[in-house]
Amino acid sequence: MTFNSFTPPKRTLLGPGPSDISPNVLSALSRPTIGHLDPLFIGMMDEVKTMLQKAFLTSNEMTLAVSAPGSAGMETCFVNLLEPGDKVIVCRNGVFGGRMLENVERCGATAVVVDAPWGRAVSIDKVEEALKANPDVKFVAAVHAETSTGACSDIKSLCSLAKQYGCLTIVDAVTSLGGIELRVDDWGIDAIYSGSQKCLSCVPGLSPVSFSPAAVEVIKQRKTKVQSWFLDQSLVMDYWAGEGKRSYHHTAPVNGLYALHESLCQLLNEGLEQSWHRHLLMHNLLKQGLTDLGIEFIVPEDERLPQLNAVYIPSTASDAEIRTALLNDYNIEIGAGLGELAGKAWRIGLMGYGARRENITLLLGALRALL
Amino acid sequence: MTFNSFTPPKRTLLGPGPSDISPNVLSALSRPTIGHLDPLFIGMMDEVKTMLQKAFLTSNEMTLAVSAPGSAGMETCFVNLLEPGDKVIVCRNGVFGGRMLENVERCGATAVVVDAPWGRAVSIDKVEEALKANPDVKFVAAVHAETSTGACSDIKSLCSLAKQYGCLTIVDAVTSLGGIELRVDDWGIDAIYSGSQKCLSCVPGLSPVSFSPAAVEVIKQRKTKVQSWFLDQSLVMDYWAGEGKRSYHHTAPVNGLYALHESLCQLLNEGLEQSWHRHLLMHNLLKQGLTDLGIEFIVPEDERLPQLNAVYIPSTASDAEIRTALLNDYNIEIGAGLGELAGKAWRIGLMGYGARRENITLLLGALRALL
Repeated sequence: MTFNSFTPPKRTLLGPGPSDISPNVLSALSRPTIGHLDPLFIGMMDEVKTMLQKAFLTSNEMTLAVSAPGSAGMETCFVNLLEPGDKVIVCRNGVFGGRMLENVERCGATAVVVDAPWGRAVSIDKVEEALKANPDVKFVAAVHAETSTGACSDIKSLCSLAKQYGCLTIVDAVTSLGGIELRVDDWGIDAIYSGSQKCLSCVPGLSPVSFSPAAVEVIKQRKTKVQSWFLDQSLVMDYWAGEGKRSYHHTAPVNGLYALHESLCQLLNEGLEQSWHRHLLMHNLLKQGLTDLGIEFIVPEDERLPQLNAVYIPSTASDAEIRTALLNDYNIEIGAGLGELAGKAWRIGLMGYGARRENITLLLGALRALL
Repeated sequence: MTFNSFTPPKRTLLGPGPSDISPNVLSALSRPTIGHLDPLFIGMMDEVKTMLQKAFLTSNEMTLAVSAPGSAGMETCFVNLLEPGDKVIVCRNGVFGGRMLENVERCGATAVVVDAPWGRAVSIDKVEEALKANPDVKFVAAVHAETSTGACSDIKSLCSLAKQYGCLTIVDAVTSLGGIELRVDDWGIDAIYSGSQKCLSCVPGLSPVSFSPAAVEVIKQRKTKVQSWFLDQSLVMDYWAGEGKRSYHHTAPVNGLYALHESLCQLLNEGLEQSWHRHLLMHNLLKQGLTDLGIEFIVPEDERLPQLNAVYIPSTASDAEIRTALLNDYNIEIGAGLGELAGKAWRIGLMGYGARRENITLLLGALRALL
């Protein structure tokens, strides 16, 4: 019996992630593997840390990439900050708010859930009501860019509100980092996690995280050990420390970090604000084209994410048939609806390297032919 | 300010991992990223699962690659099987047994530690004493190939013993899979984890795991939720289910899995027993050369791992100077001592694609020139 190599086709990735990846990033990915304790590799990790600080707009010392996907980044924030008995406000307006709730419960903490309709932003007023009703809340957790619905929440106002009530904030920026305005220090975000495979346009498998000095203090003052050894940031930080101070924790995903390094170079060389602007421009192009096809957006315009466009499936179209035809006949991937929106929505991602004019023209042309 | 790409040198990786990686695996790694729910990708994941079963010599249905490094694979086994109050025998003869202990404690379980000297195998007799003294023990955990010392433990006898006392077994095969004899079903191993970056010679970042039907039953009968959402195997298995049954959990590290797929193709096309044999042959070549240089092994011959050669640093040599010269002048990486052996030992890995005659000749030549 012979085992054969896998040769994937070249797709245009316009779903909720992984996004289209630049040839430069794929090329960086396959550079020769060196040791994870090699001084040259440690130097590269230092650069990744510096570039992540610039991408997050933070000077947080505890900024690094978790060696696992965004869901592990989420878990990193919750298991390091929460202790059994803590009370947390979880804002839930889609799948990923629900996942935060799972994390809170598995930490032995108590969640106060503030729901918003799917496809809408988190309601700052309802969060304030919950804060007033629960003076013992320690953390407020919310998703900046809800990948399951395409809604953008006002994290700046949320953090400002949480601070007034003495709470720390935990923010999901998996789909927002690099795609829309996000200012960790200016907005006062205490713990944030993202993913490599969205607007950074790196391969999936890494999760950038950052913790404010106040969050680090909470970690230092813990009475119990972090329940995950692998995600324990007090141990991981000693591994991400520079040459001479570094102590072994796990083996970093060496080649994945090459790719993240390259994708951060691309983002910062383009310019962060320039990248946000490009995502908006491309969204406007797509919006015009979809409107011409009679396709409607789920999220109201002022709460809409440019990089994740959730639209109603036209009543005349078959969800699976169209997506299958896009994939098989055009090598285009768009996303299906998730959770409450399964079968009702398509999710069209214009993320990172994927947010280019030619991709929009291709998708609109294919949809025009198929619908 | 311009951010520059990172261009690593080509090293010969003869440390404790990551090991030398075949150009075919690096080439697979950088193939075009496709969606993690793409039918073609799901088909590839099915092949990875089948090939992992063949590499582990198991028919366990719950066999897959955790989307994170070996330390997360270890944690996957412990958090899924253990519940608070459970009692576990942890065999500790190096760093990784100590890490198992950390995992047991963070699960709220109780460990009975059976120590063996660093550089020696686990003592089956001492484990039996511990089993007799602790009739309420549910699990026995041990490291097959201790990467920190180069010692190989007799997992076959250990599992047979554990079964006599009604215990399930948890085995660390991070450095053993593909390099030495390992038979999950024949030996009766209940939970096993490995790493991609050792004798599989894939890039670091993935951890193959497998659970026996008895272990799966323990997971199904849990009274408490698994403390990690990301590593919860009942959720992860629904994600690794084949087309049509698959439900979203996290985003798989798509390109990393391409590389693992390719490295498994290489292993199985060579033949598992042939690979074990090659590791032994290369070890014998290295042993002869090191002996000629007056360098002595730490582990007694009958407990020695062929793929991880821990040797005493010659008294006339400076640890850091020699390793630095190997790295800078010859682009060769060997490993430093870890834990108790820091400053006293070198660890020379001959793993997977690294276990080749030319690497041994190169290393011996360089050592001869430097010593």
